[in-house]
Formats: sequence, C-alpha cells, structure tokens
Amino acid sequence: MNAETTATLIDNVDTYMTQLGQAARAAATTLRRTDTRTKNAALQAIARQLDAARSEVKLANQHDLERGRANGLDDAMLDRLALTDVRIDAMIAGLHQVAALPDPVGEIDGLKSLPSGIQLGHMRVPLGVIGIIYESRPNVTMEAASLCLKSGNACILRGGSEASESNAALASCITRGLSEAGVDVTAAQVVATTDRAAVGRLITMPEYVDVIIPRGGKSLIERISSEARVPVIKHLDGICHVYIDASADLDMAEAIAVNAKTHRYGVCNAMETLLVDASIAERILPRLAAAYAGHGVEMRGCERARAVVANMLPASEEDWQTEYLAPILAIRVVDGIDDAMAHIDRYSSRHTDAIVTNDYRLARRFVAEVDSSSVMVNASTRFADGFEYGLGAEIGISTDRLHVRGPVGLEGLTTRKYVVFGEGQIRQ
Amino acid sequence: MNAETTATLIDNVDTYMTQLGQAARAAATTLRRTDTRTKNAALQAIARQLDAARSEVKLANQHDLERGRANGLDDAMLDRLALTDVRIDAMIAGLHQVAALPDPVGEIDGLKSLPSGIQLGHMRVPLGVIGIIYESRPNVTMEAASLCLKSGNACILRGGSEASESNAALASCITRGLSEAGVDVTAAQVVATTDRAAVGRLITMPEYVDVIIPRGGKSLIERISSEARVPVIKHLDGICHVYIDASADLDMAEAIAVNAKTHRYGVCNAMETLLVDASIAERILPRLAAAYAGHGVEMRGCERARAVVANMLPASEEDWQTEYLAPILAIRVVDGIDDAMAHIDRYSSRHTDAIVTNDYRLARRFVAEVDSSSVMVNASTRFADGFEYGLGAEIGISTDRLHVRGPVGLEGLTTRKYVVFGEGQIRQ
Repeated sequence: MNAETTATLIDNVDTYMTQLGQAARAAATTLRRTDTRTKNAALQAIARQLDAARSEVKLANQHDLERGRANGLDDAMLDRLALTDVRIDAMIAGLHQVAALPDPVGEIDGLKSLPSGIQLGHMRVPLGVIGIIYESRPNVTMEAASLCLKSGNACILRGGSEASESNAALASCITRGLSEAGVDVTAAQVVATTDRAAVGRLITMPEYVDVIIPRGGKSLIERISSEARVPVIKHLDGICHVYIDASADLDMAEAIAVNAKTHRYGVCNAMETLLVDASIAERILPRLAAAYAGHGVEMRGCERARAVVANMLPASEEDWQTEYLAPILAIRVVDGIDDAMAHIDRYSSRHTDAIVTNDYRLARRFVAEVDSSSVMVNASTRFADGFEYGLGAEIGISTDRLHVRGPVGLEGLTTRKYVVFGEGQIRQ
Repeated sequence: MNAETTATLIDNVDTYMTQLGQAARAAATTLRRTDTRTKNAALQAIARQLDAARSEVKLANQHDLERGRANGLDDAMLDRLALTDVRIDAMIAGLHQVAALPDPVGEIDGLKSLPSGIQLGHMRVPLGVIGIIYESRPNVTMEAASLCLKSGNACILRGGSEASESNAALASCITRGLSEAGVDVTAAQVVATTDRAAVGRLITMPEYVDVIIPRGGKSLIERISSEARVPVIKHLDGICHVYIDASADLDMAEAIAVNAKTHRYGVCNAMETLLVDASIAERILPRLAAAYAGHGVEMRGCERARAVVANMLPASEEDWQTEYLAPILAIRVVDGIDDAMAHIDRYSSRHTDAIVTNDYRLARRFVAEVDSSSVMVNASTRFADGFEYGLGAEIGISTDRLHVRGPVGLEGLTTRKYVVFGEGQIRQ
C-alpha cells in the first residue's frame, strides 16, 4: 500500500469516527432525558432481538472462529471468542438483570436548606458519551452497551478485530432493539472498522467522548492511557496481598490464604503475595505449604520463609512485583504490621489488600492506612468484585484514584450535578 | 543565553521537579495517616507563623509589586498581587476556618451486610499529591495549602512569577508551621523557580502527582489540559443563563435577573445571557431594560428582544458564545422551555443555569434535563459558590464531568475506597 492510499484510508477513518462521535453526542442529549421505563424497554427489546438472531450471531461467530483458527489463535483465545447458546443465554439473562437494576439517574441526595434560604442537593446524572475499547470476548459488547444504556450514557464500542463479525451481528441486535423501543439507535454504536486508527481517533476527541474505559491486557491499557486526550477509567495490575497477623485465628487465616490464591488463578483479585508475621510463621507456614502443595501451587519465599518450609523456591525482587495470574505464590515473613504495610505500600498495585487479625487496633490501622481500592479485614481478596459488592453488574475494576476506585457498576458511569431550589433568593 | 545554557537549566528544573515530586509522594504516605488533631494543629501553627512574619511577607510583596510596576503590570493586576494587613488577616482567618471544618478523611458511608456475610462500606481517603498552578494572587498559596493539608493531600504549588517573592515568604510560614506541628515539611511545597519548564514537568509526572488543578485564565487552563499526563480538575468558561418562563412571578424574575448580572461582573457565576419566553417579553423586558440601564449594563438583544426594547444593540452569534465578565448582557426571546433548553444545550459552558418559573412540571424538567454543574430554580446564578453551598471553602469550580462538578471543597479533594469487614468469609 503506498503512502497516498494509507493517508486516504486514515482520513476516512477519522471522518467515520467523527461521525460516530457526533451521533453519540446527539444521542447522549436525548438519552439523559430518557425515562427508566423506556431504557428498560430497550434492554428487553435487545434481549428479544438477540434471542431471535441466534443463528445469525452464531454464523458470524463461526466466521470469526474460522479466521481465528487460520490466524493461529490459541485454544484459550478461541474459547474466549466463541459464542455458544449457553453464552447467548447468559447475555440475554444479563440484559434482563441490568433492566431490573435500580436506575441511578435522577437520584438526589443530601438535599438540605442553607442559611440563604436556598435548598441544595446533589443529583446523579449520566457521564455523557463513553468509549469502550476491549479485546476478544464479544459478550463484552452486550455487557457494556447494556450498562451504558441503563446509566443514560451513549457509548461507542470498539471490540477486537478477531471478533469483528460477531460484534457486528450483536450490534445489529442492539440497533434493532433500540429502534423497537423508540430510543435513538446511535445511543450504542459498534465501530465497524478494524483499522487501528479508529482507536487513535476515539481516544482523542474530547468534544464527542467524555471518558474512555479500556478493558484488556496491560500493554493495551498503558498505551491508551498515555495517548488519550480524554479521561480514562482503567484497571492495570492486580498485585493483591494477604497479611496474616500474629493474633490471627490460624484456621481462618489458612482458609482465607488458600481461597485468595486458589479459588481462581487468572483473576485480578487473586492474592499474589502472602505476608506472614514472624511470630507465627512456624505455626502457619507448614500448614499453608501443605495446602498449597495439595493445590499444585508453586511457592517462592523469602529467606525467612524458606527457613521454615524447606521446599520453597527463593523469591527474587521481581517476584514481589509480579502479577502471576497463575498457581504461583510469593511468600514473605515480616515483622509486624508496619513492616507488612511498608511492603504493601511499595509493591501493591492498590487493587485489593487484606489483613487476617483478631487485633482491634491493627484492624483499624490496616483499614485506615492501606491505600488500595479495596481494603479487607478477615475476608478473601476474591470478594473484590462488582457482583459480590452488590453492584448488580460490573464494567470493570478501577485502579485509578479519581472519580471511581474499585468495582465499577452503574453508579461509576454517572456523575453528580448540584441542584438548587429557591423561592426567589438573590445574593446579598 | 545560548542553547547549551538553556538545556542545562531545563535539565536542572526537571531534576528539581522530580525531587519535589518524590518528596511530595513520601509526604502523602504519612499525611494520609495523620490524624485530624495534628492536621488542625499544623493549620493553626501556620496561621501563627504568618502572623509573626507579617513584615517579612509584606517586604517580599513590596519587591514583587515594585518589579510588577517596573514591568508595566496594570492596576488590576497590581491590586491582585498586593498583600495588605487586611489580606494577611483574611489568610489567617481562612486557616482557622479550614481547621474548624469537619475532616472528610476516614468517613465511612453505606456500610451494609451482603449475602456472603461480609460487611461493605465506602471510606473517604485523600487523593494523594495535588499540583496546583495559579496566577498572580499570592493568597491562593495559603488557601490551596490549607485545603490540601486538611484533606490529607500533599501539594506542590506553582504560583505566578510576578508573585514569586511573596509566595516564597508564604512558603516559609507554611514550612515553619508544618515543622512546629510535627508534620512532614514537604507536605506543602512551593515551586521555587519561575522557569516555565517547571510547569511542563509538574503536569507530566503521574508517578508523583495524582491530579492537577489549574486556576487562572482560559488559555493557561486549556494549555495545561492539553499537555497534562495527569488528570486535571479544571474550570473553563462561565457562560451562565437565566430563563424566565411565562409562569414566572415578574418581581421575582426581575430581582433574580438583575442580581445574577449586576451583583458582580467579573465572576464566573454571573449571568451572561438572559432568555425570556416570548409570551411575557413585552411585560418583563421593559422593566428589566430600565433596571439594567440604571446599573449601566449594556444590552445586546436578538431581533425579537429589540422589537420590544428599542435601545438594545443587536446581538450576534458571537454574543451567545461570550463570557463577558463585564456589564454587558445578551438577551434572547425564546418560544418556551424547549427552545430555551436548546439554546442552553448549545451555548452554555455547563457551569450554572437557572429557570424562573412557577410551573411545577417545567421546574422538574429544567432540573432533570439541563446538563450543567449547577441547575437552579428561582434563585440567582450567583449562589453557585463553595461558601454559599456550605462547603466552608472552595479550591475552585469544576466544569469537568468526572470526579467532581461545580464548587470543589474538601470532599472534592478526596476519593473513596471500599472497606470490607469479615469474619473469615471466603468465596464459594
């Protein structure tokens, strides 16, 4: 392809993305005025359209799978890409679940009368236009569209190129459902080009897009964050810790430390490093080592941990910095809570960290002082999840500091404006 | 200055800013663990130090004023720059006021038990390190430092070069006060170079700075927003509207429309465009025109407004887009609330917009549908202010959508993390 052709293509992608942006901005204006009943009707209509389009969706998915196989995608990637009837059922159920959730938009809290006589409150309103960039799982198309729609936001969805036909088929269901319910069909748009320039444009048009939510691998998210000219709500690492304090109930500590590591390995809220107070290392580490060995978890310990349990590999500096997402665990013996919190301060990705303790003051200190999006006492890090937190649904887990930290549900997709009710008050 | 010397200087500024950043990051870690009593003691100590250093501060300010006069600063700028005893008293009073405000850090809300047995709540915590970039008023140094300190944030303050000696003198008071109270002296640092490269570095070190708050003219803020690699909480225009509906009480409408325009001209929450429903234009516009004429306000009207009040200048497209900050008012006659909201949607800077009405349904629609940081019924736009809203203090007014909209007080300088209290729960 010569330079001139490339330039023409990029120009077209820019124009195309600008059109999507303009349409999304217009849709956002009507969507924030759309009542709950209409939004729910649209979600249910999309569910019906998806049910009616099963064969169409599965055929499109077959094409993606065939192309993926031809392109050498591995089994795990092909599995994430596949849309079976079970997964279509789950998407339909998900749409109905989102329809059943309370609508956060319009909620007013803190309404109070002020000395001037005005009454002031805080009203929850949509963010506006949300751009979502994700990778191979086409189910994300439905999840993201439904959460944005329910929270009154227009969205522009950019899925992975390997799922392009599946996403286009799902986009048709969304469009038909929106149309059936009388909602602007540009309320949820799927980017119909696999050209990478589309992402570059999507993240640099603040006039049309209010926030970007990238979902996927760390390199994708880092690249988007550094290039975006729009606020980004992102999730980077999940290097989660459990600290077992000297006062911990050892049965409880074992149950939590085993669950946090072995319940699922490839998830961001799995424990990656276990910290054990020196005074109980000899009592708890052998029990834990036996339990981990039973689960096939490879242990990598500091020198003091290895002095207690001989069959551990040595942990290096790199281990403290690694999100394994695998049956591997780093173990360090520490001297009390200050030492534990210093380790967490230095190495935690500020996602989720837990203490197991029966000491009231240490529990309070850990909760107050550990600076992570979820801080837990006597519970498994695996609870850091939108469903477990009762959000009803989750668009991701934010490891950012501003706007929203931790699991992001409908509320995280909204913002608040001030509302003032007066009776003719003026400033004196 | 040759190129080599410049390069050396810039290198030094980068190193210097990096050192400030590292020190601020370390201070933020201790500051978020500092209790309310200590933070208040530090605020009071800074107030005492400032009181004791009056002559030192005024001498430094004299040097700034002399340099400013020599550099041709106009009277308004020199006035903003001046630190009189009255202004020093106001800064001291401000420090005591911030000390008296409730500490938002550590507040837990929404604590509830979930089906798994865990108890989940949302705890308010500091943002971390805040970079504040401002222009000529040296009082901002104290205001910003006190609000950041009370909310548990470390801050790096970069004031205008014209106020450099004043800011350095105030910085000494801050340092002495922090030290006296046993708080890390790098909790609040004033950038001690006027080199512009310092700003460039400050806004591009996300490893040390969590958020940037620029205060000043629109061009400064736009430049910082477009170049920052850190989230920015910003205030751009204040193009505020008042819409007088057909059902409005005319006395109330007149009082609000006059107050919103004439109470102060150079402020962001002043009305810049008045919208009047066509059905009452003939009754309200002549009264308003007489009142505005009495205040010396220049009126620029649409054709329909000028058909009612002859002595208006014609308004152009540009008038609807202008934040006058002056005794000038654009006036447009509209056909009902939809027409008014369409105008607001198109031209409002989404700062503050108000309706004057006695119609229940229209009041509800306006509040729900107008997308501005403050939306008012029957009150002057001039109420959009941190003090009037009971925040106790204000670091600015955000016209952004994420994190915080409208007046930003202590709460806007914090974020929330999840806290989980368990009794040994694990994921099943």
